Amino acid sequence: MSLLTVGSVALDTVKTPFGEVEEVLGGAAVYSSVAASLFTDVRLVGVVGSDFPKEHIELLSARSIDLAGLKIQEGKTFRWKGEYEYDLNEAKTLDTKLNVFEDFRPDIPEAYRDSELVFLANIDPELQLQVLEQVKSPKIVACDTMNFWIETKREALLKLLKYVDIVILNDAETRQLTNEPNLVKAANILRSYGPRYTIIKKGEHGVLMFTGSSCFSAPAYPLEYIFDPTGAGDTFAGGFMGYLDTCDGLGEANLRQAIIYGSVLASFNVEEFSLRRLSRVHLGEAKDRFREFKRLSHFEEV
Amino acid sequence: MSLLTVGSVALDTVKTPFGEVEEVLGGAAVYSSVAASLFTDVRLVGVVGSDFPKEHIELLSARSIDLAGLKIQEGKTFRWKGEYEYDLNEAKTLDTKLNVFEDFRPDIPEAYRDSELVFLANIDPELQLQVLEQVKSPKIVACDTMNFWIETKREALLKLLKYVDIVILNDAETRQLTNEPNLVKAANILRSYGPRYTIIKKGEHGVLMFTGSSCFSAPAYPLEYIFDPTGAGDTFAGGFMGYLDTCDGLGEANLRQAIIYGSVLASFNVEEFSLRRLSRVHLGEAKDRFREFKRLSHFEEV
Repeated sequence: MSLLTVGSVALDTVKTPFGEVEEVLGGAAVYSSVAASLFTDVRLVGVVGSDFPKEHIELLSARSIDLAGLKIQEGKTFRWKGEYEYDLNEAKTLDTKLNVFEDFRPDIPEAYRDSELVFLANIDPELQLQVLEQVKSPKIVACDTMNFWIETKREALLKLLKYVDIVILNDAETRQLTNEPNLVKAANILRSYGPRYTIIKKGEHGVLMFTGSSCFSAPAYPLEYIFDPTGAGDTFAGGFMGYLDTCDGLGEANLRQAIIYGSVLASFNVEEFSLRRLSRVHLGEAKDRFREFKRLSHFEEV
Repeated sequence: MSLLTVGSVALDTVKTPFGEVEEVLGGAAVYSSVAASLFTDVRLVGVVGSDFPKEHIELLSARSIDLAGLKIQEGKTFRWKGEYEYDLNEAKTLDTKLNVFEDFRPDIPEAYRDSELVFLANIDPELQLQVLEQVKSPKIVACDTMNFWIETKREALLKLLKYVDIVILNDAETRQLTNEPNLVKAANILRSYGPRYTIIKKGEHGVLMFTGSSCFSAPAYPLEYIFDPTGAGDTFAGGFMGYLDTCDGLGEANLRQAIIYGSVLASFNVEEFSLRRLSRVHLGEAKDRFREFKRLSHFEEV
């Protein structure tokens, strides 16, 4: 099988209490593709400017990510500049320069249109809908979004959710989209919008999944050093979708393992800036940490 | 075995988005004793005024809680008035009237001095130390505290912690006491103060336990309706200590099960105001919810 990922490819400038990096590789499609590539073949659709460093292309190619859908356009690559305070839970955006990303229209290569899994990273929901119009008959569609689209493109977002199997949001986005502070009730509301499964990312507090008949609570890995939370949510989604692509269907056991693998990769990702740690993770390490997640949350029946 | 609990007995006036109650039964020693009484014999030390309603004494007696250490003193019972906003994570204290609790000096009855487990609920750390001076040779001592004592009685609190096996704090108290925002590092610092085990309560995000060589992450029960979070932390601690009193030692499997039982009882407690729900919980229900916690957090190995 094969996973199609559509979203931003960026050059990030990031400051955290532990250091600072300038114009490093970033973007939701990059984090999610690299995470997913540990498990499956990934096809990336996005756009970069003619200034996009060759070494980044090489990094993605080295992970066998199919870049036929990565358009290189005259102009500058999307730039994001952000800062994290000590609590590391919320990024403060200092500057966003959309550049070539401003006119991005997802053009899905013919060879990608048979993709069975689709991850729609956070972009304008109208563009996310355009992706789905081009993909023939995906088995599993997952999407992310952000506060900006919830505020400004609510109707398009609600239309999109009708075609989505799994919605992956953080807790603040979940509350904002549903106008409901209680996450159990919010998950029920989200389900009524279309998606069968709601996955809520809570950062250092782990992940919740609601299936309509059950709830799964995944722990977060307790890290002593978190250097850079950038991309953790996208890494989670990529690891989740990548592992799911190796599974036989959306059975609950598969979904739960996929959530743990997503959390495993996110926990590696935040250990260094940009994709420095994530791009070095190999499957053996990921399995070891998966087992640590098991030890972390295991208790005996009474 | 037998569990000694020392702390406040109060009449609470509480407002939440779901309703309002006036002068209902409350206090840390009450919540923790009632929770613990599901598992073991509890001895309560505290003070109330001559206005303390007889029905509350009857409720505690009906749970077979030993009240020989509950002093009834001429005057008024401790009153607390608080309010919760929609997020329900933080109480806003509107009024505190210490009344007879102001001059409370824990006087441990002779018959209680052989207690093997001691839970020091949140009171002045100097008084918590006085309790330990009176108990002969407790096997397990656990304590709670609050921001006020961390600010005003830091030295006494640090002295106390040398004699404590298990410190049970919420995340904000942990960060405040250690001056460390990262909870993994904070747990290491707490361990250097004396306690072998650190338990960090994170409200709707569950509980973490650090043992020095391992970490346990317990989920919170996802509730659709939380009517009143008052006493959830004390209920957790009481359920935890009560179950531990039935176990053979501080083995990690026992500690983890005790944390789940504490979380189970806390999840019941918040379903209604005051002790209305907690005082009705029976062991069968608690076991059923324990199993729900298992289903909530279970995933298969890879």
